Amino acid sequence: MSASRYTYLGPAGTFTEAALRTLPEAATRELEPMVSVPAALDAVRGGEAAAALVPIENSVEGGVTTTLDELAAGEPLMIYREVLLPIAFALLVRPGTTLADVKTVTGHPVAQPQVRKWLAAHLPHAAWESAASNADGARLVQEGRYDGAFAGEFAAATYGLEPLVTDIHDAQNAATRFVLVGRPARPAAPTGADKTSLVLWLRADHPGALLELLQEYAVRGVNMMRIESRPTGEGIGRYCFSVDCEGHITDRRVGEVLMGLKRVCRGVRFLGSYPRADKVAATVRPDMTDAAFTDAADWLNRCQDGRP
Amino acid sequence: MSASRYTYLGPAGTFTEAALRTLPEAATRELEPMVSVPAALDAVRGGEAAAALVPIENSVEGGVTTTLDELAAGEPLMIYREVLLPIAFALLVRPGTTLADVKTVTGHPVAQPQVRKWLAAHLPHAAWESAASNADGARLVQEGRYDGAFAGEFAAATYGLEPLVTDIHDAQNAATRFVLVGRPARPAAPTGADKTSLVLWLRADHPGALLELLQEYAVRGVNMMRIESRPTGEGIGRYCFSVDCEGHITDRRVGEVLMGLKRVCRGVRFLGSYPRADKVAATVRPDMTDAAFTDAADWLNRCQDGRP
Amino acid sequence: MSASRYTYLGPAGTFTEAALRTLPEAATRELEPMVSVPAALDAVRGGEAAAALVPIENSVEGGVTTTLDELAAGEPLMIYREVLLPIAFALLVRPGTTLADVKTVTGHPVAQPQVRKWLAAHLPHAAWESAASNADGARLVQEGRYDGAFAGEFAAATYGLEPLVTDIHDAQNAATRFVLVGRPARPAAPTGADKTSLVLWLRADHPGALLELLQEYAVRGVNMMRIESRPTGEGIGRYCFSVDCEGHITDRRVGEVLMGLKRVCRGVRFLGSYPRADKVAATVRPDMTDAAFTDAADWLNRCQDGRP
Amino acid sequence: MSASRYTYLGPAGTFTEAALRTLPEAATRELEPMVSVPAALDAVRGGEAAAALVPIENSVEGGVTTTLDELAAGEPLMIYREVLLPIAFALLVRPGTTLADVKTVTGHPVAQPQVRKWLAAHLPHAAWESAASNADGARLVQEGRYDGAFAGEFAAATYGLEPLVTDIHDAQNAATRFVLVGRPARPAAPTGADKTSLVLWLRADHPGALLELLQEYAVRGVNMMRIESRPTGEGIGRYCFSVDCEGHITDRRVGEVLMGLKRVCRGVRFLGSYPRADKVAATVRPDMTDAAFTDAADWLNRCQDGRP
Repeated sequence: MSASRYTYLGPAGTFTEAALRTLPEAATRELEPMVSVPAALDAVRGGEAAAALVPIENSVEGGVTTTLDELAAGEPLMIYREVLLPIAFALLVRPGTTLADVKTVTGHPVAQPQVRKWLAAHLPHAAWESAASNADGARLVQEGRYDGAFAGEFAAATYGLEPLVTDIHDAQNAATRFVLVGRPARPAAPTGADKTSLVLWLRADHPGALLELLQEYAVRGVNMMRIESRPTGEGIGRYCFSVDCEGHITDRRVGEVLMGLKRVCRGVRFLGSYPRADKVAATVRPDMTDAAFTDAADWLNRCQDGRP
Repeated sequence: MSASRYTYLGPAGTFTEAALRTLPEAATRELEPMVSVPAALDAVRGGEAAAALVPIENSVEGGVTTTLDELAAGEPLMIYREVLLPIAFALLVRPGTTLADVKTVTGHPVAQPQVRKWLAAHLPHAAWESAASNADGARLVQEGRYDGAFAGEFAAATYGLEPLVTDIHDAQNAATRFVLVGRPARPAAPTGADKTSLVLWLRADHPGALLELLQEYAVRGVNMMRIESRPTGEGIGRYCFSVDCEGHITDRRVGEVLMGLKRVCRGVRFLGSYPRADKVAATVRPDMTDAAFTDAADWLNRCQDGRP
Repeated sequence: MSASRYTYLGPAGTFTEAALRTLPEAATRELEPMVSVPAALDAVRGGEAAAALVPIENSVEGGVTTTLDELAAGEPLMIYREVLLPIAFALLVRPGTTLADVKTVTGHPVAQPQVRKWLAAHLPHAAWESAASNADGARLVQEGRYDGAFAGEFAAATYGLEPLVTDIHDAQNAATRFVLVGRPARPAAPTGADKTSLVLWLRADHPGALLELLQEYAVRGVNMMRIESRPTGEGIGRYCFSVDCEGHITDRRVGEVLMGLKRVCRGVRFLGSYPRADKVAATVRPDMTDAAFTDAADWLNRCQDGRP
Repeated sequence: MSASRYTYLGPAGTFTEAALRTLPEAATRELEPMVSVPAALDAVRGGEAAAALVPIENSVEGGVTTTLDELAAGEPLMIYREVLLPIAFALLVRPGTTLADVKTVTGHPVAQPQVRKWLAAHLPHAAWESAASNADGARLVQEGRYDGAFAGEFAAATYGLEPLVTDIHDAQNAATRFVLVGRPARPAAPTGADKTSLVLWLRADHPGALLELLQEYAVRGVNMMRIESRPTGEGIGRYCFSVDCEGHITDRRVGEVLMGLKRVCRGVRFLGSYPRADKVAATVRPDMTDAAFTDAADWLNRCQDGRP
């Protein structure tokens, strides 16, 4: 039964699975790794899964373009949760291996830039070869093909390996952001620390359109958190924008921003309002609270009735 | 009975009376000249008159500060109509007087800068002395104290004078704008060529507050037509703003501007939505029509319901 | 000899003379009262006076439109100093008069709204009649025509009167701002607490032109202190703007604002950079100091030379 | 000798080489394929090559993040030329192969989404496997491992293959943009159809910083053409921006934008001004021409000298 199944970007034993397992409801779901982000999301679109967890952004590599493009096109989907997972690799080895024994290492290509400095400092002579995934790298170490694999510490047990060194990460604060994606439904209630995601297509004939878009946010005191341009596929110079802002669609100020964008943009896709993983409450200007909006609406009604 | 009485800035025989008589309903009202703008408006506030016609702006002299300040303070009033009257003076003389006979002329002080060039060209040697009003000047000519008075042509009959020269005005397009002011009531229905007037007090602690105020208009595509600063009385450097914009309070884009201003300003006074005297229809951007606002609100509702 | 003569808005014994006498150099100048602001300024334009002191703004009455319009049109003039004079009236009476004796009072029409509340509280039955100036009112009391005159305390001696009550002013912080105007010359050196005045004519065909104008200031972090619209004389709906901002024309950020305005406006008239009367130093954002401008210009040169 | 050598993203026979060969000077240079974008650029940094041609943007896939990140970090480099290459694949086969014979196809992973629809329509049963590059795919067809390779038509001769079908591309107007990168030097002279590239780091403590950044462009009428956010590596939520705009650094309006950005941003890296590949001349507002800037500067000088 689909409601009990969550897909995720596989294979098993990668950071995506670790991120998924941080969600309480994951304990009661059947978790199924998929070969790609599109495959994980198509299972949701097709009703075979209730939701999919996929990476959307990495503080070292940037936006996960496949995820951004899948959410922007095709059958609409919505984001219901986000997970922030600090990036920290373990060097997994077969039991008994010491650092001096490690001549060859492997891992997913995106892992390499994140452990490069560590490698240069601690294993300057080790040869790197890429694996299809971090989990696959661990398997290849298990099979004896390499001496060490960079992967999540959690993958050690699965492959009978030991974490020789843990908490390896070249960049401070490195993290990956994942989103739990489902079919469109009513967003969860606001928590006071929420985020709202959109895809926006500007009108092509309008040079200042991006500035106009940002002013829709600014004039209602809504803080933009991320903006990422993506090609629309119509040719060089044609972009849409993936945008996250503070607040929830049921916040009056956010609702008015969304309506403003709906009017001035060529297209808007609502991707959901959901709790911020960092739980930081929005800072709302006193003149932009729901109460301020309600007062203003009441006043407008009184003016229209001749009782200003 | 008050509903049948309109007051206006007197005395009789001035441009204000002429402006009032351009309103069809003036024919069925008792028209009563008052000694000052505050007196004319206080009669409305006190219920002795249904409405008052007062000048608010002159294309040569600028804003009529007494009117602006009276509308900004005290018991609230609202504007229901505006009248634009071209400024054109007649030189009124006693019957039989020729231009060569005119050695002394009079008129209200504000008339002088508007006929100065004409005087220099046609009566370079005539001496000017100011009168309390244009009508009063005509009376003084009737009494023989001056040879000519600059006043509206319509004043000639009242004082037994003749218009020796008509259509005198130094500036092209010179006009005075008058407003018909009543107690607060439901504004007249929109005509498609409307104007909305406000008084706005900025938050004192906010350097960019005026820019913010203009952006409330700009982001909804509402064209500002007039902005005039007035002192708040709290000291040099403290101002409020009298602002007219295109559109009617029941236009969605105007309503949203008003609510925005209500939130970000320290104070807003709604002075009315009323037909433009020049009957120029507002140019509304396609993304700012009522239909565009309604579509956006429908879409927001669908998003909130999970049907984006 | 003209360099030794300063004109001012007369007659003698008014607040303008008192303001002029606060300037140290006034002690060594011949001070000549003139019948009007245009007369005072024309004496400067014609070379008969080195400078003229005229009121430009009052915290109760607003801008002095004659001064604003005279500075905007005709032969160019420049402001070199400003003076802020607190508004405080004295009730001047003939020696021996007591408050109970005062049945009639006089003063300039603009004085009336500034003493109205005091009158209502202390002399509720006294009749007010207007005089041509506060000084003229004092003279009429001297002649016995009225019992009391509202004027500056400094006027008492001139007319053989006594100040019965002093420091009368309905509004707190009420003040009048005067400017010392001369023929164009190099502005005085910046003091760190300066003000720059302009007159700006917007391009007629541009609805968002006022917003664009304010953004020229905002983008360089220059704080606008006063904006006043005045009719251009071309008809209702056509305005120019009298604008004061913080800073001196030789401040880099102010210079760039001025050049920006020169480009985007239909017309700009520079009215001077001069020390602020309140001596409040400008708050300059760290990225808008002269040093920040110089650094940026140096960097641009290096980029153009291929040494970024 | 390095001045005669250009590196490019290899291997030989790919679109990057084809793009490089569209540059006239390529005919007289030694062209050396490199295994990666960093390798191609490091050869320039190290002085072993005069310039490197690398892809920076693809109208289907988006920005080439390796190139964007390499240009933003490390030893400064500058862009001197851009090349736009329409994306059109040929299906390369061994001589004699017909469409009916093609059961297996290969190509670079980024080629797949660009030929997916064509495959579905014309070879619905063909199996796709990815190759390391399009050129490598062609080699594998030559070796008999696959029946067809998607690659540039120009690669056919190198591998003894024939183009069975040409001009295959799912998206209209699909193109890749390449840049020719060298060590910093004086930019080429402006052509009237130029582009300027920057990397911008916002101040972290400033919510409206992106809006402020766009206003630096808007207030000088400089049209932004591309903006792409990239992580700074300091953690989720910390971005820098890769931005292209119309115009040349020696255009006055562009120079002032650059200086403005230098002041308000935490960091700015100038990546060059170079001719636009599409040769579209910039549309310059009349108030933003070099002449308008020069006039404004002259006027400012006159004002500072007291000759406004």
